[in-house]
Amino acid sequence: MAQKPGIPRGTRDFSPTEVAKRTYIFNTIQRSFELYGFQPIETPSFENSSTLMGKYGEEGDRLIFKILNSGDYLKKITDVVIKFYYDYFFLVISNFVDQKDFDKEKFLNDFKESKNSDLLLKNISNSKFSGENIKNIVDENFFNAASVVQKRNKEKLIEIIKYHRGFEKFNGLSENENQILVGFAVDATGIWLLRYRQQKLDKNISEKALRYDLTVPFARYVVQHRNEIELPFKRYQMQPVWRADKPQRGRYREFYQCDADVVGSTSLLQEVEFVQLYDAIFSDLGIATTIKLNNRKILSGIAEIIGASDKLIDFTVALDKLDKIGEQGVIKEMLSKEISEEAIEKVKPLFTLSGTNQEKLEQLKVMLSESDEGTQGVSDLQFIVENVEELGLQSAEISIDVTLARGLNYYTGAIFEVAANDVELGSIGGGGRYDDLTGIFGWKDLSGIGISFGLDRIYLVLEELDLFEKVTLPKPKVLFLNFDEQTQLASLKTMKILRDHNIKCELYPDTANSNKKEKKQWKYAFNREIEFIVSAIENKIYTVKNTNTGVQERYNLEELLKAAQNS
Amino acid sequence: MAQKPGIPRGTRDFSPTEVAKRTYIFNTIQRSFELYGFQPIETPSFENSSTLMGKYGEEGDRLIFKILNSGDYLKKITDVVIKFYYDYFFLVISNFVDQKDFDKEKFLNDFKESKNSDLLLKNISNSKFSGENIKNIVDENFFNAASVVQKRNKEKLIEIIKYHRGFEKFNGLSENENQILVGFAVDATGIWLLRYRQQKLDKNISEKALRYDLTVPFARYVVQHRNEIELPFKRYQMQPVWRADKPQRGRYREFYQCDADVVGSTSLLQEVEFVQLYDAIFSDLGIATTIKLNNRKILSGIAEIIGASDKLIDFTVALDKLDKIGEQGVIKEMLSKEISEEAIEKVKPLFTLSGTNQEKLEQLKVMLSESDEGTQGVSDLQFIVENVEELGLQSAEISIDVTLARGLNYYTGAIFEVAANDVELGSIGGGGRYDDLTGIFGWKDLSGIGISFGLDRIYLVLEELDLFEKVTLPKPKVLFLNFDEQTQLASLKTMKILRDHNIKCELYPDTANSNKKEKKQWKYAFNREIEFIVSAIENKIYTVKNTNTGVQERYNLEELLKAAQNS
Repeated sequence: MAQKPGIPRGTRDFSPTEVAKRTYIFNTIQRSFELYGFQPIETPSFENSSTLMGKYGEEGDRLIFKILNSGDYLKKITDVVIKFYYDYFFLVISNFVDQKDFDKEKFLNDFKESKNSDLLLKNISNSKFSGENIKNIVDENFFNAASVVQKRNKEKLIEIIKYHRGFEKFNGLSENENQILVGFAVDATGIWLLRYRQQKLDKNISEKALRYDLTVPFARYVVQHRNEIELPFKRYQMQPVWRADKPQRGRYREFYQCDADVVGSTSLLQEVEFVQLYDAIFSDLGIATTIKLNNRKILSGIAEIIGASDKLIDFTVALDKLDKIGEQGVIKEMLSKEISEEAIEKVKPLFTLSGTNQEKLEQLKVMLSESDEGTQGVSDLQFIVENVEELGLQSAEISIDVTLARGLNYYTGAIFEVAANDVELGSIGGGGRYDDLTGIFGWKDLSGIGISFGLDRIYLVLEELDLFEKVTLPKPKVLFLNFDEQTQLASLKTMKILRDHNIKCELYPDTANSNKKEKKQWKYAFNREIEFIVSAIENKIYTVKNTNTGVQERYNLEELLKAAQNS
Repeated sequence: MAQKPGIPRGTRDFSPTEVAKRTYIFNTIQRSFELYGFQPIETPSFENSSTLMGKYGEEGDRLIFKILNSGDYLKKITDVVIKFYYDYFFLVISNFVDQKDFDKEKFLNDFKESKNSDLLLKNISNSKFSGENIKNIVDENFFNAASVVQKRNKEKLIEIIKYHRGFEKFNGLSENENQILVGFAVDATGIWLLRYRQQKLDKNISEKALRYDLTVPFARYVVQHRNEIELPFKRYQMQPVWRADKPQRGRYREFYQCDADVVGSTSLLQEVEFVQLYDAIFSDLGIATTIKLNNRKILSGIAEIIGASDKLIDFTVALDKLDKIGEQGVIKEMLSKEISEEAIEKVKPLFTLSGTNQEKLEQLKVMLSESDEGTQGVSDLQFIVENVEELGLQSAEISIDVTLARGLNYYTGAIFEVAANDVELGSIGGGGRYDDLTGIFGWKDLSGIGISFGLDRIYLVLEELDLFEKVTLPKPKVLFLNFDEQTQLASLKTMKILRDHNIKCELYPDTANSNKKEKKQWKYAFNREIEFIVSAIENKIYTVKNTNTGVQERYNLEELLKAAQNS
C-alpha cells in the first residue's frame, strides 16, 4: 500500500553533513569570486526551449531535460497529429488517383529505413504509386505495429492480421466491419510514421527546458539586460544544471556549476587574473593543482602547418597519448588518421616539447614562425605566463600543454584546465576565451572569457585528501536533556541567552518519565556527537557533560557560555 | 536571424543587487534556523512523479511541472497508443459481433460528453451495439476531428466526408481506396478518444516532475533515510519549488521556500520554540509582525458544537469577515450556507471574542466545554501562549485567531500564520502540526510540526519598509583605472595585497589610449558606484578618488588599505 521512497536515477539527497561540506566549497569559491570583482546573478531553472536547443550540438539537444507543457497539452498534439494524418492521407489519395507508376521497392525501403520524416514525406509526394502498393505498405506496417503489441489476445490478433493480409473475410464480419479492420491497419501505419515526427512533436508538447549549463543563460542574460549592465561585465553564477546523461560515479543528472565570466574586453590581463583566481581558490581549499594552459591560436597554427585543419582533433588526441604510447606510437596513430609524414615532420618539436614554460614558448615560436595566427597565439601565451610568473602564485603550478583542446569549437583564445596534483580524477576546473558568445541573441562580436569549477569533483578531492576537517558541521553545540517538566522553562530561558551569544543549542522536546527514556536521550545526544550536554539545572547551576573530554562539570551560566564559546 | 532573448513567463533573472538582497534574507533565516538546532538537507529538484502526484489534490497535480522522459519517449507512447487502439477496436469488434441490442442515443452522448476515458471505455464494454452504430460513431467523430483540421483543401475534405457519410463512391476511387478513407475516420475517432487519456499518457511520457513544495520531499527523505537520522529530526531546507500557476504580481512559477520542521515528537515545547523562531527571524529582519495562532482541535470542537463538521470551512470563511461585514452579515452568510440558527447561537461567543490572549482562552474554554477535543485544543493553545509570554518575544505580537484555518485538511494541531504589521500583503509565513506526514511512504503516525517563510513576500516587505539599507552590495570597493600599460603590473600587485586583506577590487582591463577612453573608464567607475577609484600609481603613491566624499587623495599603500578597510 505504502509507496517505496526513492529518487530518480542520477539525483542525490544531501544530508546535513554533506550540505555543510558543499557549502564550505561554495563559500570558498564565492569569496574569491567577489574579491576579484565578480558579481552574482541568477537565472531561472528553466529557459524557453528555443534559448537552449541547438546550442550544444546534437548530443547536447538530446541530453536537455524538456518540461511538458502544463494544462491540456494534448489539445495541441491532437491538432498536430490530425493535421499530419490529414496531410498524409490526402497526399496519398491525391497521388494514387493521379499516378500509375511507382517504385515500390524503393518506397518501402525508404518507409522502413528513413529516420527523417520530412524526407519520407517528400518521397511519398514524389512517388508514383497505385492503390495496391498502399495496401501492401499498410499491411507491412500494420504487421510492424502489431508485433509490438503485448502478447495477450495473440491468437485473435494473428487471425485479424491473417484476414487483413489476405483480404479474406474475418469470421462473420460484415463489409462495415471489414472496413473498420482496414482502418485499424491504417491507424497503425500512421502511428508508425508518427514515431519519426518526434522532433516536430517536441515543439508542441514542450516549450521549456531545464538549464543545461550556465554559459548560454549568461549570454541570454547579457543581451536581455544590455541596458542595465556596464561593460566589461564580470559575473559569477553558482546554480544547478541538469543533463539527461547516463548516470555513473561522479556523473549526475543534477549538479552544480560555479562559473565566473567577463564579457566586453579582449585584454589579456583577464587571462592573467583568471589564473590567479584559480590559484587563490584552490590554495584556500588546500588542493595543490596544475593549471594547464593552451591557446586556440596555437592549435590553429599547428593545423596550418600540418595543412589539415579538419585533422586537428585527431592530431591533438594522438599527441595527448605521448606519455602512454611514446613518440613512435603517436606517429603511427597520426598516420592511421591520414596525417601525412611530411606534416608530422614539421611539427616534430611538439614531441619533445620540454623544459620550463619559457623554454616551451621558445620552441613553439620557432616551430610556428610561418603561421601568423600561431605566432600570435605564442605571443598571447607568453604575455600570460610572464605576468603570472611576475605576480607569483600561492600553490598552483602553470604548465603549457599544446594537447589541451577542450571545447575546440567554442574557445577562440586562451584555454585553461586544472587538475589536482595528488588525486587522479581528471579536470576539476576549466575555461577559456570565446569571441562571439552573444551573437546568437543579436549582440555580435562581444568577446568573453570564463572559468568553471567542478563542485562534485572538488568534493571528491577534498574527501580523498581529508581536507574537510576544518568544516564546522551545522549541529547544535549544546543539548539540554529533558528529565523533568520543572526544568523545561529554565532550559528554554538559558537557550535564549545562548542563542543571543550565537551558540547553537536545542532542548530534547519530550520529558523522560523513566530511566529507559533518560537513557534514550543520552543516546540521542551521543549519536549526534553534541559537545555539551546539560542534564540538570539546579539553583542556576548547570550539570554539563563535555563529550570531548568526557568530564562532567558544574557550571554557572557564565561558565557555560564561556565553555561553549571557546570550544 | 538572431533570437530575441527572453525567459518563460513567471520566472525571473536576478541582478547582482537582487541576489545580494535575497542572500541577506536567506542568511538571516538560516542563522536562526541553526541557532535553534535545525540542520540543512537538500533534495533533488525533480522527484519521481509517483512521489509527488496525488499529494496536493487535483489542482496541485495539475500545477506540477512534468519532465518529458529523455531519449525516445515516443517509443513508449506509440506502444501505449497501439495497445490502446488494439484494445479499443478489439473490444468494439467482439462486442458488435456478439451483441444485437444497443442504446445508440446514450452511447453517443457518453462518447461525446464524457471527459473520463475510463468511464467511456466502461460504457463501450457494457454496451451492446451493432456495426451500423459503430459506423455512425465513426462518422460523428470523424466530423468532429475534421472540423479542427485547418481550412485548406476544405472542398476536398467536404467531398470525402460526404462520400464517407453516405457511403457513396468518391470520384474514381477503388474499393481499397474506400477502405483507406474509412481508416482515416477510425483514426480520427481514436485520436479523439486519446485526448481523454491524457492522464494515462502522462505516466508514459513523463516519469519525473519538479518539486512542488519542500514538505513532501522532506517526508520522502525521512522515510528513505530512516536509518541515518535520529528522532526527533530537526531539518531546514531552503530550495526553489515550481508551480505551473498563472503568473501574477508576487506569484511566480519558480520561487524559493524556506522551511524548518521537526518530526518525531509531539511535545508542545516545539510549538513554543517555533513562535520564538518566527520572532527571532522577523526581529533580525526588522519587520514588526503579528503571529496568529489557532489549533485544529479548536476548529474540530467548533464543528462538534455546531454539529456539522462538513460546514467548518464555510463557517470559518464567514467568521473571518466579521470586521468587514459585521455580526449580522456573518450570521446571514452562515445561514445561507445552511448552518442552523441554533448552531450559530451556541458559538456566539466567537463573534465577541476579545481582550488579551488569556481572556480569549477563557471564553473559548467555556464555549467548548462540551467538546473533549475542543477543550484539549484550548489547553494546548494555553500552554503555548503562557510559555511564549513567560519567555518573552523581541518584537512580534501573538494573537489567537480562531478563523485561521490554513491547510485545514493537513494540520492536526497548532496552526500558525504571520503577517507584517506595517505592510498590507497577506501572510509572510505559516505552518502547523501534522500527525501523519510520512504514512504514505510507509512510516505511520510520525508526528511533525513545521513553519515556512515566504521569501518573495518578505523581499517585498523589506523593500517597502526600506530595510535593505544595511545590505552590502557585492561590488568592488576599489577600482584601478588603466591609463597606461606601465602601471598595469603595479595595479595587479597592489590588488593582490588588497585581496589578501579581504578588500574586493578590480582593474579596468583595457588600457585607455585617448582622452575619450579615459573618460569612459571614469564613467564606468561612477556608474558602478565604486567607492575608491585609483587613477595613477607613481613612486608607490596612489592617486585615489573617494566618491563618497568627492575628495581626491594621495595615499601610500598602507593609507589605501586603511581607507578601504574602514569605509
